[in-house]
Amino acid sequence: MIHRILNKDDSARYGLLKLGHCEAETPVFMPCGTRGVVKSLDVDDLKKLGYDIILGNTYHLFLKPGIEVINEFGGLHEFISWDRNLLTDSGGYQIFSLMKFRKIVEEGINFSSHIDGSKHFMSPEIAIEAQRDLGSDIVMCFDECPPHTYTKKESELSLKRTLRWGKRCKSVQLKEHQRMFGIVQGGMFGDLREFSATDTVETGFDGYAIGGLSVGEGKEVMYEMLEYSLKNLPVDKPRYLMGVGDPIDILEGVGMGVDMFDCVMPTRIARHGLLYTYNGKLNIKNLKFERDKNPIDPNCKCPVCQKYSRAFLRHLFKVGEHTVSRLLTLHNLYFMNDFMRNIRKAIKMNCFNEFKSSFLSSFCSNSVNKT
Amino acid sequence: MIHRILNKDDSARYGLLKLGHCEAETPVFMPCGTRGVVKSLDVDDLKKLGYDIILGNTYHLFLKPGIEVINEFGGLHEFISWDRNLLTDSGGYQIFSLMKFRKIVEEGINFSSHIDGSKHFMSPEIAIEAQRDLGSDIVMCFDECPPHTYTKKESELSLKRTLRWGKRCKSVQLKEHQRMFGIVQGGMFGDLREFSATDTVETGFDGYAIGGLSVGEGKEVMYEMLEYSLKNLPVDKPRYLMGVGDPIDILEGVGMGVDMFDCVMPTRIARHGLLYTYNGKLNIKNLKFERDKNPIDPNCKCPVCQKYSRAFLRHLFKVGEHTVSRLLTLHNLYFMNDFMRNIRKAIKMNCFNEFKSSFLSSFCSNSVNKT
Repeated sequence: MIHRILNKDDSARYGLLKLGHCEAETPVFMPCGTRGVVKSLDVDDLKKLGYDIILGNTYHLFLKPGIEVINEFGGLHEFISWDRNLLTDSGGYQIFSLMKFRKIVEEGINFSSHIDGSKHFMSPEIAIEAQRDLGSDIVMCFDECPPHTYTKKESELSLKRTLRWGKRCKSVQLKEHQRMFGIVQGGMFGDLREFSATDTVETGFDGYAIGGLSVGEGKEVMYEMLEYSLKNLPVDKPRYLMGVGDPIDILEGVGMGVDMFDCVMPTRIARHGLLYTYNGKLNIKNLKFERDKNPIDPNCKCPVCQKYSRAFLRHLFKVGEHTVSRLLTLHNLYFMNDFMRNIRKAIKMNCFNEFKSSFLSSFCSNSVNKT
Repeated sequence: MIHRILNKDDSARYGLLKLGHCEAETPVFMPCGTRGVVKSLDVDDLKKLGYDIILGNTYHLFLKPGIEVINEFGGLHEFISWDRNLLTDSGGYQIFSLMKFRKIVEEGINFSSHIDGSKHFMSPEIAIEAQRDLGSDIVMCFDECPPHTYTKKESELSLKRTLRWGKRCKSVQLKEHQRMFGIVQGGMFGDLREFSATDTVETGFDGYAIGGLSVGEGKEVMYEMLEYSLKNLPVDKPRYLMGVGDPIDILEGVGMGVDMFDCVMPTRIARHGLLYTYNGKLNIKNLKFERDKNPIDPNCKCPVCQKYSRAFLRHLFKVGEHTVSRLLTLHNLYFMNDFMRNIRKAIKMNCFNEFKSSFLSSFCSNSVNKT
């Protein structure tokens, strides 16, 4: 059993995920270390922020520096000098979202690199072998991630291929410490989602991810599809909502029983000057911060709020100093970790719904940005 | 007395510089915090590297965020959260090197901002008042920094204006903790350099800088002009060679009795993938490092060499991750501080010339980059 549920508050779960490199409390948010690094940061930053698990992207690492190079180092942990947990995606999502040229056949996908147009082939077996060589603690199945505009027929064909591919993924032998997660698909159709979940569970994995959401379908539909996807998943296995990291969506997901989240958003918006606070988002570029001596958030305990004023950070942003990307990313990732800690605390104390309401009323009032 | 000479080895001096915020051992290298930040780093990085003094550029800060904004914070230390020493230049060098439109009159210089073309006026008084408001520990005189191609007549006219401007600078009242340095000019003419030094010393400053060198004149001429510039400077005042930071030039300068250096080079070349080691410069972009598990320099104790391989750093550089700028900058600034520490140690032990020879033979053999 890799996931121990320690407390439940309605459907929200507080648990402990036991992985190859360390334990991680859930619900957990996992920052994206796309190409071997969380953008602007280094692994010491992530350790200081308290993260126990980060993501790597198989597709990007497959192209550069190449799996073979990383394998020579003994795996991704060694290559990037990270001694806590790693989750790698399968590359499927990038192939579907980044590629202009791609051809899906039963065997796998022919695609051209987004970097130099070079031709490649990715199959379930190749994706899992790559992740085996990367040595990630959680290996994701190779799935087809369809657009939200697919018809029911298209969605069904797609999810069934994902199911067949899932079985092929499972046939690849992993390293001792590695765990494999299956992925629930089914487009924007509740019955297909239920069907996908049931069949994926039948194949049997160490955990289950919900894929193909937060791809432009709108929040209402997303929450509905999430509910259908979760319905038939076993309670004793971890559940991972892929690509979702908006605090509001995380609260919804946790409320439905999701344990794990990842998203590039907190780090990406930081690089654009947008910062999370419990009172809403703050745009550091705003002229009103020109002489503001306050930290980003006076109540925040992050290293950046302990040290720097809004005016200084705004100045760095306006003159284009790269230093500011790291500082703003540190703040947002501190916020995300602190937010997840508060969620876990609320579940432990059986007051998750109260926490959720109180967070939403403060976060959505957006008082920081009121002029 | 702000500078105590604790040992001399021939002309090389080991000393202690007592400034407004802390003491700094000399010879010292000062990184450039051009626009309030050493590019890619934050002040915690600099403290961990052990720097006691960094530079700020009055010209850049004058334009953005504006001296008035910084003054509202109580000064540059407070604005950038740096509690050690700051040296600010006068802005003269940038006005001469960055400006397409500038008009020099006796009163000062009319110039257009390199950012938006807006018109500004800078005079000795304005430059010193700006630095007074910035609150830097060392304030530099406003000088004219002529190109190395000036004729003798042009150089003489220019240096005499610098001398007159120096006297006007001195008339501005500074804050209690601030010290002002005069600047020796004189172009590429030994007798003018001597004359400039003598007259600058007559005006009387807390320290003396040598300006107008390393501007394209070539090393031989530079060393010769440096010698002429130093000849008439008092032994008991600190001497600062402006804009020079090449390790070989630093050794030459120290050998002639220079105490302080600054340069953007160690940080700039880092951002281009060039790294200092005691065995020469290393180009991290080199293909031969693709699978190299060694750190940049196996003998280096910097945080980057303690943790990351050449292959990983090369990968980050090749895919364009900003994280690598910070890591490579950390290495080069660690090297510079370590190099200066070794220079000081050699002077203390009266073996500076032996250290210099041994360093040069190893550094110039460039064994790291031999294929």
